Amino acid sequence: MIGITDISSFVPQTSESTFDIAKRFDTDEAFVRNKIGVSRVSRMAKDMDTSDMCVEAFKKLERKQKEPILPDCIAVCTQNPDGNGIPHTSALVHGKLGLPKQCACFDISLGCSGYVYSLSIMKGFMESNSLEKGVLFTADPYSKSLDPNDKDTAFLFGDAATASLLEPLGERNGWLPNHFIMETKGESGAALTNASGKIRMNGRAIFEFAIREVPKQIGRVLEKANISPQDVDFFFLHQGSKFLLDQLKRYLKLPDEKVPTRLTNQGNTISSSLPLLLEERMDSGFQNAVLSGFGVGLSWASCMLRNYEKS
Amino acid sequence: MIGITDISSFVPQTSESTFDIAKRFDTDEAFVRNKIGVSRVSRMAKDMDTSDMCVEAFKKLERKQKEPILPDCIAVCTQNPDGNGIPHTSALVHGKLGLPKQCACFDISLGCSGYVYSLSIMKGFMESNSLEKGVLFTADPYSKSLDPNDKDTAFLFGDAATASLLEPLGERNGWLPNHFIMETKGESGAALTNASGKIRMNGRAIFEFAIREVPKQIGRVLEKANISPQDVDFFFLHQGSKFLLDQLKRYLKLPDEKVPTRLTNQGNTISSSLPLLLEERMDSGFQNAVLSGFGVGLSWASCMLRNYEKS
Repeated sequence: MIGITDISSFVPQTSESTFDIAKRFDTDEAFVRNKIGVSRVSRMAKDMDTSDMCVEAFKKLERKQKEPILPDCIAVCTQNPDGNGIPHTSALVHGKLGLPKQCACFDISLGCSGYVYSLSIMKGFMESNSLEKGVLFTADPYSKSLDPNDKDTAFLFGDAATASLLEPLGERNGWLPNHFIMETKGESGAALTNASGKIRMNGRAIFEFAIREVPKQIGRVLEKANISPQDVDFFFLHQGSKFLLDQLKRYLKLPDEKVPTRLTNQGNTISSSLPLLLEERMDSGFQNAVLSGFGVGLSWASCMLRNYEKS
Repeated sequence: MIGITDISSFVPQTSESTFDIAKRFDTDEAFVRNKIGVSRVSRMAKDMDTSDMCVEAFKKLERKQKEPILPDCIAVCTQNPDGNGIPHTSALVHGKLGLPKQCACFDISLGCSGYVYSLSIMKGFMESNSLEKGVLFTADPYSKSLDPNDKDTAFLFGDAATASLLEPLGERNGWLPNHFIMETKGESGAALTNASGKIRMNGRAIFEFAIREVPKQIGRVLEKANISPQDVDFFFLHQGSKFLLDQLKRYLKLPDEKVPTRLTNQGNTISSSLPLLLEERMDSGFQNAVLSGFGVGLSWASCMLRNYEKS
């Protein structure tokens, strides 16, 4: 059974203060602080691309593991690939890391629901092909297509990449993802697009969709897993914005301490937001958690994550 | 066990004669006929996009099935998505087909090796999530980023989309894909790129790579499956060009009749080339076949396909 045994991340040091951006738009600082919850949005350096951020996250993973990682397969979850997507970014990462040719590489194109989906895709792919070491990257640098004059997005999105090590549990401690539910509402996809080459978002439509659908889906995951909310240590929710998280907490009737946030110092990092949260709680000894990602598509996906100790 | 139970395709009616293109470049017609093997390259209509070609392939699949198809999940394998990739093309297809929200949708970014990979990804995903009906689309309209003045690519690439129905075998006849091998050489990815917004290809590098790696990989798949080439009815190889296919046949010591071609009327359709071939041979009663895709990445992937009759 394949699960997550380690996670690392790369958040660029370069960033922009949202308070400075607020001045540009004549926006109230209190709005930025209370509604968005972001102080700085991270920005990839000009000489970096999506694959470079993945390479940095991989190197950090190797340092944590204290040994070279030789994966059988890597996947990059991104909707902002290098070089207009040909070749796929995972092949570029493969080349930059000098990995051996016996390594399957593919990209998964999904946004905010991408980490949950990609865990399921990689788990199925690795189990079905008897692969023993996978690395799942998330890296969606929206800065490549943000419009600095667009108030709806300039405060919100930050750049980051993460690398999750996927291995058979049993031999090592880790976290088993299961009880997946994935849903789609393609007819409402216009709420978040890049058709013009610039990201455009209807924040209100995304907000209403999340409030309507996410609590229901999480309820069904808990039912499928036959576990009550009281027995779940953490609800890791996609970091859309502080206001959205506050409302979801209210609808789900959850105390603050069960819904971690990591928005302040880098912003909403799309598919990286869930692994960034997980990375910070990996050593907390949690037994059961819910993961839920939602946004671009519209697409939403949730699953359970259970602590799995080696036998 | 999930396998392929049906395949349909959409090849745009609009096309360009390669003999006309040859005149533009002062190229010998014999070269086009003998080396490339393409008479017409298909071109998506101006008012269509990648998702629309998928929708057409899906409608044809429904007509073949003689009933509405309600998939649990759909995947689109493409490196030329609609609208710069946000939202993912599978979500747009979901919206255009008016599918219910209980449907997982994701895109897979891979080129010529994409169909083999995507079969494995979808098989693992569906089995792991107990999903019973999936549709795998391939659609990579290179015409969106072809340079009409580039002699290396103008003759070769055509637009097409395919839809493969994936269902549990046993209840229905179908083809079981297994014994997958996937490899990558990211350091040589520059042989086929879109970094400039226009497709650029080093045909010689791709050719040499294919001749060096593909026969070896197919040999290992046959070994893994414990089957001799004599017992394989068809070798479905990615339709790179006639010259490449002729050379691969020679290296693999295969008779013409075991290596079907489908190049003449639409050209090299990237990830659609293998399902286009399969579509034509589905009713031929073959028992065992090899599938092999190779190109962009560089990436190459092969597997067996076995006829599986319902029990």
